[in-house]
Amino acid sequence: MAQAISDRRDVQFVLNEQLSIGGLCESEIYSDLNTKTFDLFMKEARNLAVKEILPTLKESDQQGCGFDNGKVTVPPSFHRAYKLLCEGEWLSVADDPEVGGQGMPIVLAAAALELFSGANLAFSIYPMLGHGAAKLVEHYGTDLQKKVYLKNMFTGHWGGTMCLTEPSAGSDVGALTTVAKRNPDGTYSISGTKIFISAGENDLVENIIHPVLARIEGDPEGTPGISIFLVPKYRVNQDGSPGEFNDVVCDRIEEKMGIHGSATCQLTFGPKGQCVGELLGEERKGMRIMFVMMNEERLNVGIQALGAASSSYLLALDYARQRVQGKHILSGKDGQGVPIIQHPDIRRMLIQMKAYVEGMRSLNYYTGMCMDRARVATGEDDRAKWQARVDLLTPICKAYSTEMGCKVCTDAIQVYGGYGYTQEYPVEQIARDCKITTIYEGTTGIQAMDLLGRKLAMGGGQVFLSLINDLKATVDAAAKIAGLEEMAKRVSAAADKLMETAQILGKSARGEKALAAFANACPFLEAMGDVILGWMHLWRAMVAAPKLAKIVGQKTGADLAAAVAANKDAAFYDGQVRTAAYFINSLLTASLGKMDAIQVGESAPVDMADASFGG
Amino acid sequence: MAQAISDRRDVQFVLNEQLSIGGLCESEIYSDLNTKTFDLFMKEARNLAVKEILPTLKESDQQGCGFDNGKVTVPPSFHRAYKLLCEGEWLSVADDPEVGGQGMPIVLAAAALELFSGANLAFSIYPMLGHGAAKLVEHYGTDLQKKVYLKNMFTGHWGGTMCLTEPSAGSDVGALTTVAKRNPDGTYSISGTKIFISAGENDLVENIIHPVLARIEGDPEGTPGISIFLVPKYRVNQDGSPGEFNDVVCDRIEEKMGIHGSATCQLTFGPKGQCVGELLGEERKGMRIMFVMMNEERLNVGIQALGAASSSYLLALDYARQRVQGKHILSGKDGQGVPIIQHPDIRRMLIQMKAYVEGMRSLNYYTGMCMDRARVATGEDDRAKWQARVDLLTPICKAYSTEMGCKVCTDAIQVYGGYGYTQEYPVEQIARDCKITTIYEGTTGIQAMDLLGRKLAMGGGQVFLSLINDLKATVDAAAKIAGLEEMAKRVSAAADKLMETAQILGKSARGEKALAAFANACPFLEAMGDVILGWMHLWRAMVAAPKLAKIVGQKTGADLAAAVAANKDAAFYDGQVRTAAYFINSLLTASLGKMDAIQVGESAPVDMADASFGG
Repeated sequence: MAQAISDRRDVQFVLNEQLSIGGLCESEIYSDLNTKTFDLFMKEARNLAVKEILPTLKESDQQGCGFDNGKVTVPPSFHRAYKLLCEGEWLSVADDPEVGGQGMPIVLAAAALELFSGANLAFSIYPMLGHGAAKLVEHYGTDLQKKVYLKNMFTGHWGGTMCLTEPSAGSDVGALTTVAKRNPDGTYSISGTKIFISAGENDLVENIIHPVLARIEGDPEGTPGISIFLVPKYRVNQDGSPGEFNDVVCDRIEEKMGIHGSATCQLTFGPKGQCVGELLGEERKGMRIMFVMMNEERLNVGIQALGAASSSYLLALDYARQRVQGKHILSGKDGQGVPIIQHPDIRRMLIQMKAYVEGMRSLNYYTGMCMDRARVATGEDDRAKWQARVDLLTPICKAYSTEMGCKVCTDAIQVYGGYGYTQEYPVEQIARDCKITTIYEGTTGIQAMDLLGRKLAMGGGQVFLSLINDLKATVDAAAKIAGLEEMAKRVSAAADKLMETAQILGKSARGEKALAAFANACPFLEAMGDVILGWMHLWRAMVAAPKLAKIVGQKTGADLAAAVAANKDAAFYDGQVRTAAYFINSLLTASLGKMDAIQVGESAPVDMADASFGG
Repeated sequence: MAQAISDRRDVQFVLNEQLSIGGLCESEIYSDLNTKTFDLFMKEARNLAVKEILPTLKESDQQGCGFDNGKVTVPPSFHRAYKLLCEGEWLSVADDPEVGGQGMPIVLAAAALELFSGANLAFSIYPMLGHGAAKLVEHYGTDLQKKVYLKNMFTGHWGGTMCLTEPSAGSDVGALTTVAKRNPDGTYSISGTKIFISAGENDLVENIIHPVLARIEGDPEGTPGISIFLVPKYRVNQDGSPGEFNDVVCDRIEEKMGIHGSATCQLTFGPKGQCVGELLGEERKGMRIMFVMMNEERLNVGIQALGAASSSYLLALDYARQRVQGKHILSGKDGQGVPIIQHPDIRRMLIQMKAYVEGMRSLNYYTGMCMDRARVATGEDDRAKWQARVDLLTPICKAYSTEMGCKVCTDAIQVYGGYGYTQEYPVEQIARDCKITTIYEGTTGIQAMDLLGRKLAMGGGQVFLSLINDLKATVDAAAKIAGLEEMAKRVSAAADKLMETAQILGKSARGEKALAAFANACPFLEAMGDVILGWMHLWRAMVAAPKLAKIVGQKTGADLAAAVAANKDAAFYDGQVRTAAYFINSLLTASLGKMDAIQVGESAPVDMADASFGG
């Protein structure tokens, strides 16, 4: 039977064969676990995704959220799925069992989120935000705050949000106007309006804990004056029991292109002057604190897009195998209709989708694995190295996965043809749902500025170089494997060109041509993503090629095809090598042109007068 | 005030300065016209688009079409707009006044369609199909058919459709199963079901004339056995008066991603055995005849996407000028908020959108102009040359404009950020509406196969070479203009590389590697589109640069900026030169990488076993 969401075999491959996550069990933190536990975990996560979340997909789109007099109702089918998620402790896969977590590696949290998002992206937003808000309390809360909030949040009984955006403070959070006024008892009265607050109000959870960015009266303008507050929907007594309504009012929910099941709320805090918040962490450290959640969510959003793309790919693949239409182009006049997977252009779209999905899977899981390495690190240098790697990769995981994820989702519509444009099939919905990922938690442009303006230069460029060094180690190893020599060369050359481009662009960004350089921030991020995916594919091929050779020996041509047809593993490994060849020889080759274009450094985008844009 | 649809100045520029359409008036056919008539025509078209069609946009999406017991209702606001369209003879801009046309050049029909589609793509489908069906009658109808049908169709009182697709015959039209049975009176009884029939049933028009592909009983399978029939919704008496219902039943309409205002119908012909059709043209020539309409509609669909992209660009531009968010990246801590057009990444998106929109405008109008040249040609060679040029460009106009059009529409959402994802602003709707254009009238993949499999080889490759020769003539002329030398070189080099790529790919397509070659058909089409747009931009710059120099002299830097700020024409022409620089130096440079990738000729897409795709 066709798989509905992320390819099971490929997920296993990345976890067990490419990243060898079993190695994590050598560390004390994960010493109670083993690969069997991991496999069981993934099986359960898939079950939940396929059997409980996936069935909510269509209703989620067609029914959407209800809004009536400040009350928001989620699609009815969400209740059961969310309850099961809570019961199974799926909100906090990688967290301490003491606060309601499963104590699993972070890489598995990434893999589970891919499954949940692939089943229904809109649904996945609720647990994702609840968890992120809980992590803030865990990191910065007082002992009392932890005691009161943590378990209810990690277990999903209480939800969470991220209250940053205001009507005139979107990408520019520092411009916010929400005010916090000190009360004599140490709490703060919060007043202001926040927009685009996902899960801001809903009937899934008993209470909602809003981390709210606001400015304490008298504090400076801009980012340095921002503090962060925990503002519950219902006040919480010190014993954790719910108290009275805290004057947080949902004024409206947005009508959107997609994710109709996700309530996007406008919230007013304290319309009656009765909204009380508790300071989280120190005053005026709000942005720094919120970034802990923001970084987690950026990685999560990349994985959401991966999940949407994974599902779109498998749907399109299944459709292409079933749908008979047209003759094989090499058949004569008397040719019979064939499944459209036999048509070269459909195959090109499918292998391209596969290459992006699998490359992004490797990238996102790898980044999760880096977080685990930081977690299990015994020395500070080691921990810092892996944390820096995560920091560098975060904008790429976010922006590249979401941009390419949207592309894959759109290609799925194209594979379906006219049917893909109808609501009879799910691909158009998934494409609409996925489009939010390039926007929320910082647009692609914001991520690209982060990469070019901050991340590339981290540690004097050493963090970037260290990544390239690891890539080169893969190149060296792959170059020794029969059949991969040419691919290894291409990846190496692309990495060299990326370094060259980074140097040129980085230098420009600090000089007179800064504006022109930043106009190339997005193209650079895309090129860097291409090169990293080239690395991931070479790595995959390096793992797969020897295993393929073990099964099929030195066969080529028709003999190889027969051997591949006869053995599932051979088919999988051969697919790995060929997908890598496609990505590296085609897509990565095209990417060299993108880098040439960046190196030209055309400044027209920033030199052109505003009036010359027309309109 | 901000312009709502296609930039007026740029439209004028292409018509009057780039293509110099006034020259057409030298021919006898257009001798009654002059550039003033043309300008007046464009002004009226814009008025109609902005004042009457644009206001239907939102209702069209939100209300959509109604379906009740076989009856389809269009969004109510369509009625007035359509009536005005008919009254002004806007359906048949370039047709003979004797049959209800305006007798204008075809290039102006293209320009008007851009405006109408930019105002509401879903609405534009009705007149577009009505006209296309009328052209079939004009080309292939008997005198009686012309007398009975033509005027009512050209004037829009009767609508038209294209009835090709069936549940198992989409891209593979030859597989259709609709049957035509000869009646003793020379008519045919039609029975069968057609799907995805735009405007198949609606309450806009008194009658609908369906050109239906069907197989006469006993005729051979596949394309060679297909004939085409005129099948009216209400039978038509020989005096043109409407007769009884012709047993054409709408069973359902599709729920779709977008174009909700366009009724996409499933039609059953003759459920009670009472559906009568008249043969159009000769028996078994149905496909050839339908291709006349198909080719017109393919060009129209490219223009629809251009219209959607034009509007998206202007909306995003206007938003970027109004929306204050964030500081200028070179400003210090005390910097004030600036309109987002000041941010380099927003400018990059805007200039890229501008470059695609304007390049596609030139391409699509140019192709309309080629049709005019064929029309006014006095010798057969000349006519054949321009018709061949149109045939070669048709798949590129269709596929490239729609793919890049969708990209522009998606980028518009990105410029708006979170607001763009909401239904409060029109850009998400336009993106959903535009997505159909890559699918209907032959998917991008079908266009690419047409280009690689047929069009490139037309006239032994001479048609392609003739196009490149004209491009090279522009290169030679541009190389002599100060400031354009480098751009001219790049366009020339890109054209050379395109020819090289075409040779390699064309040879592969005819040999053993045919499958792998056709897997590169879409990338090739895209690269060819890039090169042609490079040509169009160089041509634009060639026209603009001397005019700019005339206004601003030899000024550079701040002096130039001041001169440009002081003069609208200078701002426009400077924008032309800089947009060309951006397209040619950045986007066309990146395209060289795409061509390298095609030349590698990686065959993994077609070599990989079906099982290796996973799932």
